[in-house]
Amino acid sequence: MTPSQPSTPPVITLTTDFGRQDGYVGAMQGVILNICPTATIVHLSHSIPPQDINAAAFILYQTFQYYPAHTVHCVVVDPGVGSKRRAIAVRTDHGTFVGPDNGVFSLALRAEGVNVLEAVTLTNPDYQLSGVSATFHGRDIFAPAAAFLAGGTEPDRLGPAAINLVQIDHLRLPEPGQPVEAAHIIHVDHFGNLILNITELHLDRKDNPRFTIAGQTIPRLSRTFADVAAGELLAYVGSSHGHLEIAVRNGSAARRLGVKAGARVTVSRG
Amino acid sequence: MTPSQPSTPPVITLTTDFGRQDGYVGAMQGVILNICPTATIVHLSHSIPPQDINAAAFILYQTFQYYPAHTVHCVVVDPGVGSKRRAIAVRTDHGTFVGPDNGVFSLALRAEGVNVLEAVTLTNPDYQLSGVSATFHGRDIFAPAAAFLAGGTEPDRLGPAAINLVQIDHLRLPEPGQPVEAAHIIHVDHFGNLILNITELHLDRKDNPRFTIAGQTIPRLSRTFADVAAGELLAYVGSSHGHLEIAVRNGSAARRLGVKAGARVTVSRG
Amino acid sequence: MTPSQPSTPPVITLTTDFGRQDGYVGAMQGVILNICPTATIVHLSHSIPPQDINAAAFILYQTFQYYPAHTVHCVVVDPGVGSKRRAIAVRTDHGTFVGPDNGVFSLALRAEGVNVLEAVTLTNPDYQLSGVSATFHGRDIFAPAAAFLAGGTEPDRLGPAAINLVQIDHLRLPEPGQPVEAAHIIHVDHFGNLILNITELHLDRKDNPRFTIAGQTIPRLSRTFADVAAGELLAYVGSSHGHLEIAVRNGSAARRLGVKAGARVTVSRG
Repeated sequence: MTPSQPSTPPVITLTTDFGRQDGYVGAMQGVILNICPTATIVHLSHSIPPQDINAAAFILYQTFQYYPAHTVHCVVVDPGVGSKRRAIAVRTDHGTFVGPDNGVFSLALRAEGVNVLEAVTLTNPDYQLSGVSATFHGRDIFAPAAAFLAGGTEPDRLGPAAINLVQIDHLRLPEPGQPVEAAHIIHVDHFGNLILNITELHLDRKDNPRFTIAGQTIPRLSRTFADVAAGELLAYVGSSHGHLEIAVRNGSAARRLGVKAGARVTVSRG
Repeated sequence: MTPSQPSTPPVITLTTDFGRQDGYVGAMQGVILNICPTATIVHLSHSIPPQDINAAAFILYQTFQYYPAHTVHCVVVDPGVGSKRRAIAVRTDHGTFVGPDNGVFSLALRAEGVNVLEAVTLTNPDYQLSGVSATFHGRDIFAPAAAFLAGGTEPDRLGPAAINLVQIDHLRLPEPGQPVEAAHIIHVDHFGNLILNITELHLDRKDNPRFTIAGQTIPRLSRTFADVAAGELLAYVGSSHGHLEIAVRNGSAARRLGVKAGARVTVSRG
Repeated sequence: MTPSQPSTPPVITLTTDFGRQDGYVGAMQGVILNICPTATIVHLSHSIPPQDINAAAFILYQTFQYYPAHTVHCVVVDPGVGSKRRAIAVRTDHGTFVGPDNGVFSLALRAEGVNVLEAVTLTNPDYQLSGVSATFHGRDIFAPAAAFLAGGTEPDRLGPAAINLVQIDHLRLPEPGQPVEAAHIIHVDHFGNLILNITELHLDRKDNPRFTIAGQTIPRLSRTFADVAAGELLAYVGSSHGHLEIAVRNGSAARRLGVKAGARVTVSRG
């Protein structure tokens, strides 16, 4: 990472399960601005369900590729804070990731075209707040690390190389090119749209796919919401890495079907 | 629009119904920072009720006039995404508006003192992400357009002139100077305050106005909350373009009266 | 306060009870960017419960010390808007505070190491929006004051010296060094963790402390969440100024115990 040019300010994204009613995110931002005053701080989400590493992994995966390569993505969903889990920074050719080593980067680091260049364990106290608390590493370790890295500090100053990063296996996607007969919901969004763990590459293109979920069958793949009447269920290729989604036009598929992340979807041929 | 001066960074405001628990707003911000790295991105609201164009129109109307004239306001409340509705940019002497042509700019473009200088349809693929999705034009069309415009690109580079923009008729306010006998709620705010579609100019100033709503009568126009006791209903000239509001001091008028946007208010003389 | 250096942009934090679904915070940001275009605007919280001065005081206390000393902290939780309560700015060696004189700065101004350098009443109309509304001083008085101060305007330009600032007595913490037998909850955070009004300095270090709350006893002080099993109650030194906290590992202590801010905690010896 080279220091940012004057014309391209450092960018740091924050993703946490802290919510916004407390001062936790506010404290992290103060720490960042003290170390890297010109940083543009962007909030991906602070509404990750408490300690839901899978949800944070998905939000990051859905988002990071749209950011400049010099962006530092700081994710603090950290049920193991205070235990022996490592704190890490992972530099790639599509951004640098900072957070706990609990698998929260599983999807982003395995996304197509992403190459890991360097990974370190954040152990050097010179790049942490003095008097690190036992419960708020977001403020005391991750925010300073993100700010130093965004400002141009080389990752290897922050600690020794980290190998064997934790990967969450059930976040692994099916191999592309292999038609699947079953899928599951990996994320339910704000609109109640259901995002599946498969893309168009997992469908057999010769046949018309049908999807069955919670006893309801969707007889085809649509192109967009406008292809069905208001209130109707549809399946379509969504906007996140081409994953398939199931939705109700002008409504909530999650509420209609009574399903949540993890629910099974059967894929058959029409 | 001339390119921004170094001392006045480009400003882009975002208003959507995306919420903040997903990565949708995060993706839009990444797209913007890739195209216009020095942009100051401001969030007006991402809590617009899903597909509620009226609510988005009101938030924008309540807010845009406080921004510098070089600001680009990007609004994505877009039930028609994927249909034939146009994507537009409208340059005025009080800011540039970017979003779907579904009437969401109705109130802002008709606000006092606002002059439309130029309107275009966003059809030029050179100013869109490659591989525009069918469902997320916020990221693929509107965010890039807002970023290019904020960075100084002339609107006519983005597409041909747009005429006959969609206007939402029921968002039209009564003619000023004509005393009214009935009004309705156009917005219920976070505190449960009720914002009406009329201003002081719609009252007959010679008489003391009385307001009746949900069977309750408010016998006068107050100046401020402190004019009534805690827990009491009051009517007053609010802070948004002088619209009248009905509130409960230290309480919620929406909850007390059991009303929401659209509810009728009778105006009589004391 | 000297004008900010080019390399350290002005910083303004905002804390309100306005929520984010309306345009109120958006209007304040527009006003700020008009006056101080290079300001970095940071949101501490806009989810303060309506008119809850105590909660806002705590969020600010939890946060301000992590910000650069040139930061302006603007807090608008203002049940007395429109009454005779003063509008104030208070410059300290740990930041400048702008808001209503209702005690919302009680905790920050009494925090260890904070020295008040100057306090003024915001009465000069040259530093307010023209046509100040009776109900939205956040936009019309506080946002402009914060923006002028962040841009380097001397506080005494904004109005005459203010003395006898309002202090909220029940926000006063016990004297350190005096072991206490009772404490109370001053804040319940997003995770349902309970933050007490005492720190480790209020415990008798010779004995093992026990805490009793809502009929449940916690037999010791833990170091971190990982010291107890998932689902168990624990007490520990928290991350905010060393205040003690009570939590459930991977759960919500507030929900488990059915308590909220103000609830009593008995401190005894093991």
